[in-house]
Amino acid sequence: METATHICVYAGTSHPQLASDIADFIGIPLGKVNVTRFPDGEIHVKFGEHVRSADVFIVQPTCTPTNETLMELLIMIDAAKRSSAARITAVLPFYGYARQDRKDQPRVPITAKLVANLITVAGADRIISVDLHSQQIQGFFDIPVDHLYARPVLVPVLREVTGGKNEDLVIVAPDSGSAKMGMQYGDLLHAGFAVVAKRRLSGDSVACSHLVGEVEGKTCIITDDMTSTCGTLAAAAEILKARGAKKIYAAVTHCMLNEQGKARLLSSPIEQLITTNTIPQKDDLGGRIKVVSMAPLLGEAIQRIHDGKSVSTLFYVRD
Amino acid sequence: METATHICVYAGTSHPQLASDIADFIGIPLGKVNVTRFPDGEIHVKFGEHVRSADVFIVQPTCTPTNETLMELLIMIDAAKRSSAARITAVLPFYGYARQDRKDQPRVPITAKLVANLITVAGADRIISVDLHSQQIQGFFDIPVDHLYARPVLVPVLREVTGGKNEDLVIVAPDSGSAKMGMQYGDLLHAGFAVVAKRRLSGDSVACSHLVGEVEGKTCIITDDMTSTCGTLAAAAEILKARGAKKIYAAVTHCMLNEQGKARLLSSPIEQLITTNTIPQKDDLGGRIKVVSMAPLLGEAIQRIHDGKSVSTLFYVRD
Amino acid sequence: METATHICVYAGTSHPQLASDIADFIGIPLGKVNVTRFPDGEIHVKFGEHVRSADVFIVQPTCTPTNETLMELLIMIDAAKRSSAARITAVLPFYGYARQDRKDQPRVPITAKLVANLITVAGADRIISVDLHSQQIQGFFDIPVDHLYARPVLVPVLREVTGGKNEDLVIVAPDSGSAKMGMQYGDLLHAGFAVVAKRRLSGDSVACSHLVGEVEGKTCIITDDMTSTCGTLAAAAEILKARGAKKIYAAVTHCMLNEQGKARLLSSPIEQLITTNTIPQKDDLGGRIKVVSMAPLLGEAIQRIHDGKSVSTLFYVRD
Amino acid sequence: METATHICVYAGTSHPQLASDIADFIGIPLGKVNVTRFPDGEIHVKFGEHVRSADVFIVQPTCTPTNETLMELLIMIDAAKRSSAARITAVLPFYGYARQDRKDQPRVPITAKLVANLITVAGADRIISVDLHSQQIQGFFDIPVDHLYARPVLVPVLREVTGGKNEDLVIVAPDSGSAKMGMQYGDLLHAGFAVVAKRRLSGDSVACSHLVGEVEGKTCIITDDMTSTCGTLAAAAEILKARGAKKIYAAVTHCMLNEQGKARLLSSPIEQLITTNTIPQKDDLGGRIKVVSMAPLLGEAIQRIHDGKSVSTLFYVRD
Amino acid sequence: METATHICVYAGTSHPQLASDIADFIGIPLGKVNVTRFPDGEIHVKFGEHVRSADVFIVQPTCTPTNETLMELLIMIDAAKRSSAARITAVLPFYGYARQDRKDQPRVPITAKLVANLITVAGADRIISVDLHSQQIQGFFDIPVDHLYARPVLVPVLREVTGGKNEDLVIVAPDSGSAKMGMQYGDLLHAGFAVVAKRRLSGDSVACSHLVGEVEGKTCIITDDMTSTCGTLAAAAEILKARGAKKIYAAVTHCMLNEQGKARLLSSPIEQLITTNTIPQKDDLGGRIKVVSMAPLLGEAIQRIHDGKSVSTLFYVRD
Amino acid sequence: METATHICVYAGTSHPQLASDIADFIGIPLGKVNVTRFPDGEIHVKFGEHVRSADVFIVQPTCTPTNETLMELLIMIDAAKRSSAARITAVLPFYGYARQDRKDQPRVPITAKLVANLITVAGADRIISVDLHSQQIQGFFDIPVDHLYARPVLVPVLREVTGGKNEDLVIVAPDSGSAKMGMQYGDLLHAGFAVVAKRRLSGDSVACSHLVGEVEGKTCIITDDMTSTCGTLAAAAEILKARGAKKIYAAVTHCMLNEQGKARLLSSPIEQLITTNTIPQKDDLGGRIKVVSMAPLLGEAIQRIHDGKSVSTLFYVRD
Repeated sequence: METATHICVYAGTSHPQLASDIADFIGIPLGKVNVTRFPDGEIHVKFGEHVRSADVFIVQPTCTPTNETLMELLIMIDAAKRSSAARITAVLPFYGYARQDRKDQPRVPITAKLVANLITVAGADRIISVDLHSQQIQGFFDIPVDHLYARPVLVPVLREVTGGKNEDLVIVAPDSGSAKMGMQYGDLLHAGFAVVAKRRLSGDSVACSHLVGEVEGKTCIITDDMTSTCGTLAAAAEILKARGAKKIYAAVTHCMLNEQGKARLLSSPIEQLITTNTIPQKDDLGGRIKVVSMAPLLGEAIQRIHDGKSVSTLFYVRD
Repeated sequence: METATHICVYAGTSHPQLASDIADFIGIPLGKVNVTRFPDGEIHVKFGEHVRSADVFIVQPTCTPTNETLMELLIMIDAAKRSSAARITAVLPFYGYARQDRKDQPRVPITAKLVANLITVAGADRIISVDLHSQQIQGFFDIPVDHLYARPVLVPVLREVTGGKNEDLVIVAPDSGSAKMGMQYGDLLHAGFAVVAKRRLSGDSVACSHLVGEVEGKTCIITDDMTSTCGTLAAAAEILKARGAKKIYAAVTHCMLNEQGKARLLSSPIEQLITTNTIPQKDDLGGRIKVVSMAPLLGEAIQRIHDGKSVSTLFYVRD
Repeated sequence: METATHICVYAGTSHPQLASDIADFIGIPLGKVNVTRFPDGEIHVKFGEHVRSADVFIVQPTCTPTNETLMELLIMIDAAKRSSAARITAVLPFYGYARQDRKDQPRVPITAKLVANLITVAGADRIISVDLHSQQIQGFFDIPVDHLYARPVLVPVLREVTGGKNEDLVIVAPDSGSAKMGMQYGDLLHAGFAVVAKRRLSGDSVACSHLVGEVEGKTCIITDDMTSTCGTLAAAAEILKARGAKKIYAAVTHCMLNEQGKARLLSSPIEQLITTNTIPQKDDLGGRIKVVSMAPLLGEAIQRIHDGKSVSTLFYVRD
Repeated sequence: METATHICVYAGTSHPQLASDIADFIGIPLGKVNVTRFPDGEIHVKFGEHVRSADVFIVQPTCTPTNETLMELLIMIDAAKRSSAARITAVLPFYGYARQDRKDQPRVPITAKLVANLITVAGADRIISVDLHSQQIQGFFDIPVDHLYARPVLVPVLREVTGGKNEDLVIVAPDSGSAKMGMQYGDLLHAGFAVVAKRRLSGDSVACSHLVGEVEGKTCIITDDMTSTCGTLAAAAEILKARGAKKIYAAVTHCMLNEQGKARLLSSPIEQLITTNTIPQKDDLGGRIKVVSMAPLLGEAIQRIHDGKSVSTLFYVRD
Repeated sequence: METATHICVYAGTSHPQLASDIADFIGIPLGKVNVTRFPDGEIHVKFGEHVRSADVFIVQPTCTPTNETLMELLIMIDAAKRSSAARITAVLPFYGYARQDRKDQPRVPITAKLVANLITVAGADRIISVDLHSQQIQGFFDIPVDHLYARPVLVPVLREVTGGKNEDLVIVAPDSGSAKMGMQYGDLLHAGFAVVAKRRLSGDSVACSHLVGEVEGKTCIITDDMTSTCGTLAAAAEILKARGAKKIYAAVTHCMLNEQGKARLLSSPIEQLITTNTIPQKDDLGGRIKVVSMAPLLGEAIQRIHDGKSVSTLFYVRD
Repeated sequence: METATHICVYAGTSHPQLASDIADFIGIPLGKVNVTRFPDGEIHVKFGEHVRSADVFIVQPTCTPTNETLMELLIMIDAAKRSSAARITAVLPFYGYARQDRKDQPRVPITAKLVANLITVAGADRIISVDLHSQQIQGFFDIPVDHLYARPVLVPVLREVTGGKNEDLVIVAPDSGSAKMGMQYGDLLHAGFAVVAKRRLSGDSVACSHLVGEVEGKTCIITDDMTSTCGTLAAAAEILKARGAKKIYAAVTHCMLNEQGKARLLSSPIEQLITTNTIPQKDDLGGRIKVVSMAPLLGEAIQRIHDGKSVSTLFYVRD
């Protein structure tokens, strides 16, 4: 049997621009596939060229509308499998349902694991994703996962935006769940650290947020993996402002702002939200959002996976 | 370990009324489950009571919006599994994507099989469905499928509606795919048969529909498993009218009429469309649609499955 | 690891001639394998050459004696797998048990799905088959299926045999199950259509066959996927004759006539039965059977699968 | 869901008498199932009663014609699974293909493992078998195997037949593969041991059989798990006779004598072949074969498995 | 088949005392099983009573020597499965390898997922564990996991030990990974929060730990899921002492102190380490370690799982 | 995707010398991998070079301490899989737990099968092993097993050591389980055969060993697959000596002598124990143990597997 000698990059409907940028980076045309809807809303997929023995990469962040984009991905995988692709890699720059990654209350699902099982049973051979909500999601798969970080792309921009004086810089985790990621940013930027905690007084059923750490006169970057309503970010920013922060930025990998989120961002003390295009970014809100492209990193990873070269060299941030 | 002694019937958001009617038929309250959306559209499921060791039936026709209702079903199954339900039965009165049950052109998926795999990997132990687009879909599963027919419910109504004079009655298959089902209706109703065929003339790339069989002066029932745009039914009805049919009815198990479909039905020569509530039927279009409830049949099946009694006795149509 | 650079074609005992013709078409010698029986009837398989890293195709229609030929296939797959073949393709020009593809009555198996599971668990990586009894059987597999049609091979012969005057030609489906295939032939041959239906009169438990459609003075071709007893074909032919058909042919992909079948064909009004060699055809019954070879189509498909080229181009019938 | 409260015992066509004897022992009627052949030899199975929630035991030694009896078993399992049996136990008193349990030469299958995989994928929940050719075959399954021994049934008969004077008794293994079983019989019967070995002289390509151990004036029992051509047994008996054995018996669990085997037995110095009915025994060759029934042991095992009681108490031979 | 009516609790060699306490709580004798070593170190397991149809719980924290205790667990599961236990629950009060739950550097395994796969393939039907290093490990399984928390057991003791004056109490997370758990303790104890962070100065490759938050004059509890060398706890305690903390406690669920760890604890400013017996605790170091038993919580959970009752009621901490 | 063009050989900690010798034979450097222990004994694995698309062979006899060496192997496989190795072959020159390959008593595991399942679920694509305790263990795997024999390596040495006079040579099986292997050695060496049997006298519960066959004045080689305590070998040697054997040798493939075993060997009448280095051999006991290297055979096999050439040519012993 012939060895697959060509990469094919296909896009579902969730982010064709990113797929196209990736294909451009690699230097190939974007693959032809027709993803449409029947009148009743059922998805119809047909590849527009034969994929037999090809090394297929399907680029599809499973962002809003998540259930639609996820089903598109699954159906495209099924079609590629039944059309005898040599290898199928699902590229999910954003992994929907990632926050439902544990049973933190009784009688709930672990939807992030369900999604991993769905992708696997559909026929994917491997996964590429970026800044998963928790790193443990890699272990939800038994197929190889190439987990990329947005940091190599975001950190240089953050240095530039904040002026790069590290002694003045404080990374702020807006809640306990983002403390770990915050400290990793802190390490790369040689910055201080603060975290927003909650405290419930005795006999009181309401918990109040307060800042643990010092930010007075400092430049702060609130870091998180994602935002949709901007609620956590805006609340943290208000606290920082009240505690005397000089300038406040936010950095998130995945930005899926809805209308409420946009309004909150605009009325918040956040100077600028720095993010990536793992999810389509249509509006920079008059410069309040700065978007950095992940296409070169994803393209380089795809090329290296195809060539059998190390991907981990893409993880490093230059000092 | 205790044997599960109680049936629990749960509804996703696609057809709570049917689930409720089924629970009423069985004589139990509808189970408590909370199926909601996060602001970004991700589904959140939480059972409102413990399901440990219960015999869980989740009633969810995967009708429009199919991808949403299907994902709800999968997530509910995952939640029930992780909450230690003794057995989980997915009840899909309508099985979305059923028409994509074969690769009739190159480079397309077999989405109906993908869906079967998704339901199985999510953790369902068994399936109940009604009038699958093709019976072979039962074989897409390796878990038991109880496949019910709408005929025991529809045939008595069809007899009544058409006046029951068999010698005057012709069942019409509106295309080749529905010929088999049409003959089965014909057998039950002791009726004649006709089929709409297509013919392409030599050198011509357009195929014309024409009727094979005699309908002049007859009462006709066009039978199919489902309709959404009413296109096939209306076209067949026009041909029947042109060929001198006396009265024209249609009978479909699954009716998912969109706006176009409703308009077509209203302007067609179809006297009445007889259907069931496998999909929610909100509007009878001034009596042009007659809806028969499947709740008693589904409820009886669930009760019998729970009790370990024969379900096949529900298949028979009384003469 | 070395890429498999060579195709190997092996034959079980069910149709060595076809396998040999396929190997000839490809231009390679037929692979060496010893398939014998122990005195107690157990099958013994030993490959006569090493298959490590080879691209193995095992040609074995699972025709009568089906259980023997199927077990041979499974054991050959197991032997090839344990001998480290790079890829194993089961080539079933005829797929035994295909008619048991659904549960149309209670308490029966879906043997066609069981067979798919058996082939998969034995270790096949892919399947090639021809004119499956129902196209949905493709979905019984989660490994890729290359489903070929006999039409590109049969249609030119049918044109020639019937004189090619389309206005005189009617395709006849001998029962409801073959209506769909009949219309597809009709489309390719620009022919008219008729179907044999059954009707039960009120209060009568016996159903009578009758023809729906017009055939008087026409040349008819009865089409079906297979025949073994010739019962359905002969009964349809008698009806056609009674209704004034001028000439009657039959075309089936898979012809497995037993003695009764041969006798029926000879005494039927069928001028000639046109078929293929998916099953060994030893006797042309004095010209009453015309056999067209599938070896070129199967050989071309195998070569293209090995080379990673499109197979769907083989589907088309030249006008 | 209801707990299965009833045992159902079904028979394929390979040994209905044994199944019937087992059902009698348990005190239930033999279950109703229809196992027939279509004209082309395909098997058709239909249960004649509902098996939903039943504890189903399918009794089917996969003896000659092995491929037919095995496929029957697989299809019956599929039918029972799809008919919602609560548990399916495949009872194979004789396990066909058991001798193909290892790859002792290159490019051969391990058919005994393939068979285990086939039975498992068809849907069996557990296995009962008797004196597997090698005990390791139990490990071919990941479902529970209740492996019974014929010794508790055969040893008392052997004591009786041979007169029970242990000092005179020698157990003879007719080849190296049966040495282990031979010593186990020896232990139970307090007997001596001998084995037939082969020796090839230098430069000679032919190996000669010779006896290792002393048998002069002794009563010998040649023990093996099975015989079909009686070749090994008869050869060993000739050697024993030549070496002065007083009386020669043979004891095998599974006796599948073909015509050649019967002739060999009759002309051999073996006084009597003691065996069981794991395989149908139609002819006692004028008393030269003595058959002991396994029905009580199998029936007791099935009853105990159903009742959740220990089965291992059935393993012991009373001194 | 009979329903399993009895619970059986078995212990491997890692913590027989805990298993015995659990059995006592339930009111049954500890099950008989023999877990020994062959001279070459291979494990030998034999159940001392029949487990057919039993509801088997195997209590085995996979603590040091982890590879030995894990293999014991796997082999016990295999033995129970092959002996036809009705259900097998692996009870891992401590889950070894839990910290290797993600690929945080290239070319490393995700051993916690591997362990989940090993336990599942061995035949476990469900899992009980306590305070998994990350909650996402639940999603490593597709079988149900009952994940218990030590908090209902530890919080009342912490209240008592610290005098219960919440305004004086600060929970300290000793690193970013434990921030989330720390805040959960803080919420239950109505306490303040601080976290030990690291900061690297520009151009410096060494990161210094420093405390984020205020602890002067406060009673501090350092919380973590486990400790083995006491390194993280002792380092945090030194920082707290330097920052003026009044009293310093530590609370960890899993305490696996080696000799170095014991020495560190004794020489640290930690007044007392409060922990549980998920791992055997042989030495209280003169009162410096306070051990609270998990046996009642685990016993109650096992009883409820067997009875089909809710387990989540065991999660709550009384105010 | 690129085809893997390079072999990588890695060693766990159980036998780095053998892995190094194999790499030398192939002519490549031994691959870099770090296998260490955390303070609590958990294993940590990190590959020191990228293995993406490599053809990885992990050499790890699972000898004492078996549970440690087995877990190392499983974790290395997991790491290689998640690092996208193209193919992973587990090379187990000695397969621990091989003797637990059947359920010869109730309520015990089949640990050799469990181990096969563990290796498979961890992600191995194929297995290489040497002289498995029973050949049936090959069938415990559904992935390909290349099973090598030590005989091609040992037989020439045995000829040399014993002086090669075949008429004087007797192969002795020290128990019934090794009778088959003994006869195979006998065949290759053109030698006679004897076996140690046990006999229990009537009414006696103790069985006595005695020799079946003649050895007086002969040179004997006791053959077995492995020894750890030397108990079976030494006991057989004493019997041989008492029966007048001239010279006594022993040949085992796997030699895992503990202190007791070494003492027994030294005080036994065995002139020399001939064995291989499938397990590390550190001490030749003053020449009483002769070790033959398996590295060339294993290296050749690995090279041939990588190159897609026949491995079975390595099975043959030159006459």
